[in-house]
Amino acid sequence: MDTEAQSGRETKLGKEEEAVQRALSITRDGFLGDVEAELGKTLEGGFPPPMQEASVLLEAARHLCIKGGGKRVRPRLVGMFGEALDAPQDALVDIAVSGELIHAASLLHDDVVDEGTMRRGLPTARTIWDNKVSVLSGDMVLSLAFLQLRRHPSKITQRAIELVASMSRAAMMEIVACGRPDMSVESWWGIALGKTGALFGWCGEAVALLQQEEEAVQRFQDCGKHLGVAFQMADDLKDLRGDDPKDRFADIRNRNPSFCLLTASERSSVFRQHLKEAWSQERLSEESIQYLGEEVLSLGIAEHTYQALCREVELAIEALGRYGERAGGRDIVTWGHLLCQGLKEYGH
Amino acid sequence: MDTEAQSGRETKLGKEEEAVQRALSITRDGFLGDVEAELGKTLEGGFPPPMQEASVLLEAARHLCIKGGGKRVRPRLVGMFGEALDAPQDALVDIAVSGELIHAASLLHDDVVDEGTMRRGLPTARTIWDNKVSVLSGDMVLSLAFLQLRRHPSKITQRAIELVASMSRAAMMEIVACGRPDMSVESWWGIALGKTGALFGWCGEAVALLQQEEEAVQRFQDCGKHLGVAFQMADDLKDLRGDDPKDRFADIRNRNPSFCLLTASERSSVFRQHLKEAWSQERLSEESIQYLGEEVLSLGIAEHTYQALCREVELAIEALGRYGERAGGRDIVTWGHLLCQGLKEYGH
Repeated sequence: MDTEAQSGRETKLGKEEEAVQRALSITRDGFLGDVEAELGKTLEGGFPPPMQEASVLLEAARHLCIKGGGKRVRPRLVGMFGEALDAPQDALVDIAVSGELIHAASLLHDDVVDEGTMRRGLPTARTIWDNKVSVLSGDMVLSLAFLQLRRHPSKITQRAIELVASMSRAAMMEIVACGRPDMSVESWWGIALGKTGALFGWCGEAVALLQQEEEAVQRFQDCGKHLGVAFQMADDLKDLRGDDPKDRFADIRNRNPSFCLLTASERSSVFRQHLKEAWSQERLSEESIQYLGEEVLSLGIAEHTYQALCREVELAIEALGRYGERAGGRDIVTWGHLLCQGLKEYGH
Repeated sequence: MDTEAQSGRETKLGKEEEAVQRALSITRDGFLGDVEAELGKTLEGGFPPPMQEASVLLEAARHLCIKGGGKRVRPRLVGMFGEALDAPQDALVDIAVSGELIHAASLLHDDVVDEGTMRRGLPTARTIWDNKVSVLSGDMVLSLAFLQLRRHPSKITQRAIELVASMSRAAMMEIVACGRPDMSVESWWGIALGKTGALFGWCGEAVALLQQEEEAVQRFQDCGKHLGVAFQMADDLKDLRGDDPKDRFADIRNRNPSFCLLTASERSSVFRQHLKEAWSQERLSEESIQYLGEEVLSLGIAEHTYQALCREVELAIEALGRYGERAGGRDIVTWGHLLCQGLKEYGH
């Protein structure tokens, strides 16, 4: 890529970042502040002497959840769904905190599972402390997530439990999928739904259950699921585009059968063979990674992924039905559109 | 120990085993069979192609829970508490299975935390497969444990969630306590309560909540907690006695500050100093382990632990109140007495 093109890319990136920022800041005033305060309160404290060292359990959780930050996508979604149903803010804060903690618990365990060293720009808990701390901290955070829901209809907790079961299944499927270019795109869907869609869906469903708005239960769940899948597709697409220029084509490098790679494999048996050969090697050369990446691009996979992403966003909006016309609901629609817009360069 | 004494020991052990077997088989006809069947049903199945390899998640759970067996202490307790309140068997089976699964989930994570290689006479899941499988299988089993309760009053699930939070805290405290002879006996109590007492207590409490028998909620919880602590004390005492002759004084060897070791440390500053020195070494010689073990015995700690154990059993029975006179309740009383009887040799 020459310097001019690169500077063009930077401008585009800047605009996209801005759009995403705008999208993500669509949430009621003060709501996210309340979520942060409650997150802090839930994770504060530690163990009294002589067990003070056991406080690493909560320290690790705070390290990931608060110090590491995170975009708070799930709390934001809860805020938007909540506004669409005019739900009381304190109950929404509980659901948002619970959703964020379920996410955090899964990351703490994922880092053990993937032997990850960095997360949210910080060393992972298992690097700073160890696997023990990461496993037990994840267990603790998950309990806290469920406990956060205790004052609300028990069906919300029930569904959170089912959600966690789906997430564990998807995490295992992801491990099995690693390095396998022969997986079907359908299997990718199953993993994306379990990994991201199920929790996004729960964020909507929980709000509907809270408000006992029967029609919204299924609608919000479906909307969240489609948004979650779109979110995963956007991630895959950004990797193709090289948003992190130092780590472009990371999915090829990390043997992660992304939506893009599996679609390319389904489309071209030649590419599938190339990917299979590359992933059967113990080490992948930088050269072959770049070659495979260009091959994916030349197959028009970026455009295809963009279309699929927009389709998921459309389905998410469709699922909302009349709720999409309300405050909060409109924000979700806008958010979805901005997600597409940020990647519009592929839309031809 | 000479051969005669050893053969005397074996006879005693035989009798104790018999007593424990008797104690443990005090459960309604067919109940444990139903629990086994339901455990099998809950953990059956796997993932369809192409994800069939992800089935290790459930395989690992079955390996621990079914192939590895286990004494089913928690289900048996549920059976006895249930009989005292004349609870319907199908609901009791759900609570029993849930309790056993919560226990199994904690073991799957403990094995990662302790880097354990053997459990219930079989290699641990993390040895056969790996840490990933053990972590995710534990997560999955915990979700299944909660799901098993879905048809029953939501307060039971709520209390199960709080229980799991206590168990994570206790697991962390146990790690911190490792190798520390300066811990207080009180801290030991906190760990034993969180590790074993809380789940035993939940087994009783859940049954009382199921039957909406208000008076029994606190009583059964307390009874279970005391029994759980007694159970831990019995374990510690058996290690002193050398029930596993190849691994006598394992608590000293594994730097586990047991009730016996902490009591000895509190009683004798000389012993405390010896233990501290030994545990500050990178490697403990077999000679020093045996020496320290004999030191504990010479301080009369076995007798003291026996008395403390019997006191816990008494408190458990007291907590039962009038329920101790009912069928099921009487079995719990008998079970407690048999637990003491099995270690009666120390009762002078």
